[in-house]
Amino acid sequence: MSYKKLAKSFLDSANVSIGDTVKVEKNKVLYEGMLLDRSEDSDDGYIVLKLDSGYNLGVNISDAKIELIKKGEEPKIQFDPFEIEEDINKMDISIISTGGTVSSVIDYKTGAVHPAFTADDLLRANPELLDIANYKVKALYNILSENMKPEYWVEAANSIANEISDGVDGVVVAHGTDTMHYTSAALSFILETPVPIVVTGAQRSSDRPSTDAYLNLFNSIGAAKSEIADVTVCMHEGLDDGYCCLHKGTKVRKMHTSRRDTFRSINSEPIARLKDSKIFNINPNVDYNKRGSKDLTLRDNLESKIAIIKSFPGIQNELIDYHIDKGFKGLVIEGTGLGHVPDYMLDSIKRANDENIPIIMTSQCLYGKVNMNVYSTGRKLINANVISGGDMTPEVAYVKLCWALGQNDKFDEVKNIMETNIAGELSEKSSLKYFLN
Amino acid sequence: MSYKKLAKSFLDSANVSIGDTVKVEKNKVLYEGMLLDRSEDSDDGYIVLKLDSGYNLGVNISDAKIELIKKGEEPKIQFDPFEIEEDINKMDISIISTGGTVSSVIDYKTGAVHPAFTADDLLRANPELLDIANYKVKALYNILSENMKPEYWVEAANSIANEISDGVDGVVVAHGTDTMHYTSAALSFILETPVPIVVTGAQRSSDRPSTDAYLNLFNSIGAAKSEIADVTVCMHEGLDDGYCCLHKGTKVRKMHTSRRDTFRSINSEPIARLKDSKIFNINPNVDYNKRGSKDLTLRDNLESKIAIIKSFPGIQNELIDYHIDKGFKGLVIEGTGLGHVPDYMLDSIKRANDENIPIIMTSQCLYGKVNMNVYSTGRKLINANVISGGDMTPEVAYVKLCWALGQNDKFDEVKNIMETNIAGELSEKSSLKYFLN
Repeated sequence: MSYKKLAKSFLDSANVSIGDTVKVEKNKVLYEGMLLDRSEDSDDGYIVLKLDSGYNLGVNISDAKIELIKKGEEPKIQFDPFEIEEDINKMDISIISTGGTVSSVIDYKTGAVHPAFTADDLLRANPELLDIANYKVKALYNILSENMKPEYWVEAANSIANEISDGVDGVVVAHGTDTMHYTSAALSFILETPVPIVVTGAQRSSDRPSTDAYLNLFNSIGAAKSEIADVTVCMHEGLDDGYCCLHKGTKVRKMHTSRRDTFRSINSEPIARLKDSKIFNINPNVDYNKRGSKDLTLRDNLESKIAIIKSFPGIQNELIDYHIDKGFKGLVIEGTGLGHVPDYMLDSIKRANDENIPIIMTSQCLYGKVNMNVYSTGRKLINANVISGGDMTPEVAYVKLCWALGQNDKFDEVKNIMETNIAGELSEKSSLKYFLN
Repeated sequence: MSYKKLAKSFLDSANVSIGDTVKVEKNKVLYEGMLLDRSEDSDDGYIVLKLDSGYNLGVNISDAKIELIKKGEEPKIQFDPFEIEEDINKMDISIISTGGTVSSVIDYKTGAVHPAFTADDLLRANPELLDIANYKVKALYNILSENMKPEYWVEAANSIANEISDGVDGVVVAHGTDTMHYTSAALSFILETPVPIVVTGAQRSSDRPSTDAYLNLFNSIGAAKSEIADVTVCMHEGLDDGYCCLHKGTKVRKMHTSRRDTFRSINSEPIARLKDSKIFNINPNVDYNKRGSKDLTLRDNLESKIAIIKSFPGIQNELIDYHIDKGFKGLVIEGTGLGHVPDYMLDSIKRANDENIPIIMTSQCLYGKVNMNVYSTGRKLINANVISGGDMTPEVAYVKLCWALGQNDKFDEVKNIMETNIAGELSEKSSLKYFLN
């Protein structure tokens, strides 16, 4: 077990091993539960109990007393996926882990969640997944997704491309939910793929009874085995454990801080719904690329000197100048309404245009399309060569601009790329029907 | 009529007046329709026709020919609301116009929409509104709402307070939709009010057949006559002309660029629904202040040196330093997920804290609550004294911070204000149920 020093002496004093039921008394409060193992890097002075309620509790052992109630059963021998023989009747799926809640555990000292599992651990924790595919697993990062950066998108895309070159039938990327939609958009622009690339995650960590990690992973593997060879996000459809939705990687956004069905298609609908690791139904209104219809292509040059600027009443136009002075290569404005900023911003926006810095206009409404033709403010922005982000979210427009400026540095070419649908991010259809669905 | 010079000669040549049906030939294309009047400040070389389709069309008269088909009926004499005698059986409502689409007309030269109507014009255009209340009208501004600024919020609040002091029974503020939710939040913090203050607007200008201006105004007057003495936003509930929703001014957001039902309660529900200018039903789950329960109070000090910073993968931490160096007094971060930023931002955030600059954490998910206790990133932010925005949208947190720093400049006091519910902006209830409703 991974208990050491103080905690180990404490446990040894009562001859307690992992899996045993114990009673712990501390400050006149009694706790009864099963002793759990804990993560390698955690503090020495704590033990972790699983209570009857299903919740896990970290107990500081100083001044605590422990008593053995019942020896636990012998722990089952865990699978090692690498020792499982490949079944030629099953498809080969790569699982690439980058960290996030889907591969996290709680730090029982502070109660905060840390990324800790690798893709390998994910399979060990959910051995029933071994029945549905052969796996190759790779731990690329072990970070919470707020720490993702554009250069990590490039590394992840290259790892995925290597797996596909090696002949796997689909790829699942385990990822934190905070910036999953940025990563799914980035992979959509960087890669053309003959096989499914499915990004998934969890809102509750795997060691909690309410975890959504298993269902999301289970259905993502089903999506990776399917005919839908796009970059997609596969997450819970609703609050219960029924279905998952498969969203287009460029048309999805995290819309709730904590709900398990937080990911929503924006200005689009999900491509498909999954149940029991199988496609349950495909949405006839959404296009997708069929398995094998595209060759593997990697265009991984990104420009990372790009910023998102949100407009608000009182914003200072110097903010645009700051970014120009700092050498930024492009800006995405999250404007109000149909795509507006205060009119006193116009001079700085013209200056950006004079210096060949493309500015993409998006809307903080999120739903609907930018249209700078309707109001006088918008007309002035069009005259200053501000480029419409169409019905892209500000986040997707940002990722696309990083990619577009990586492909070409000429203003007109970048404008052309931004206004051309590359990976399902721009929709010709009316945006009126896709509201809060 | 307001046609002058070239256009006037052109019309006079065929003895055409406003309201007449005419045929215009230009570049071998024939247009037939009724001659409309046009706004004062528009270009001289155009006339405007209302086509049978209901659409209005601007025609450049150079090289055009005009022919009179039928003289129009004598225009009806328009009401002048100021000449209408006050009816002591009706309530007294003030209408304050600030501009926006609700009081806009199309510039038929460019097709773009300009603000042009005053509150007075609004009543002239909709004389049936005179049946339901006595009015005092005031044109405060004539701007599109992307050009609103915090100092205008203060002026508007003072105007409203004057009307209430003068004894009106309710106030309707006609406003552009782009930043309506910022203004409704600002009025909510600045004013305590014994009577309803209803902010309304339109997504389609009054001269278009699909305009929502009338229904929104009609129901807003009903809301201003009601018992709900809060600052509220009254806008279309759905796509048809049935109901309007009355949203709490601190819990509402523009969520679609163009739909008429764009305003949605976020992390809350509407207070009431209106139909035919009357409260149709009141939501039992939402609290509101009853008419007369509060005395008029105006706390109108605002700090305007505040910024919203949106976090994204690749954001540069220098952006925080820039705002500190520029003397900003407070920052609102639109973080990812439960309220996170990349960990390399932490040093700059600590520097802000060392310089007593409060930082409020909100979430770009919009729905749900910030909770920095769950993940290690959040714990570090709490240790750097980052203040949780709870379930406020980034926009409301921004307005509230402007107001809080106007009330007090001590860090602990500002923190206390930000964490205390002042005007319904912070909800104790679970945020899980209010998702995309």
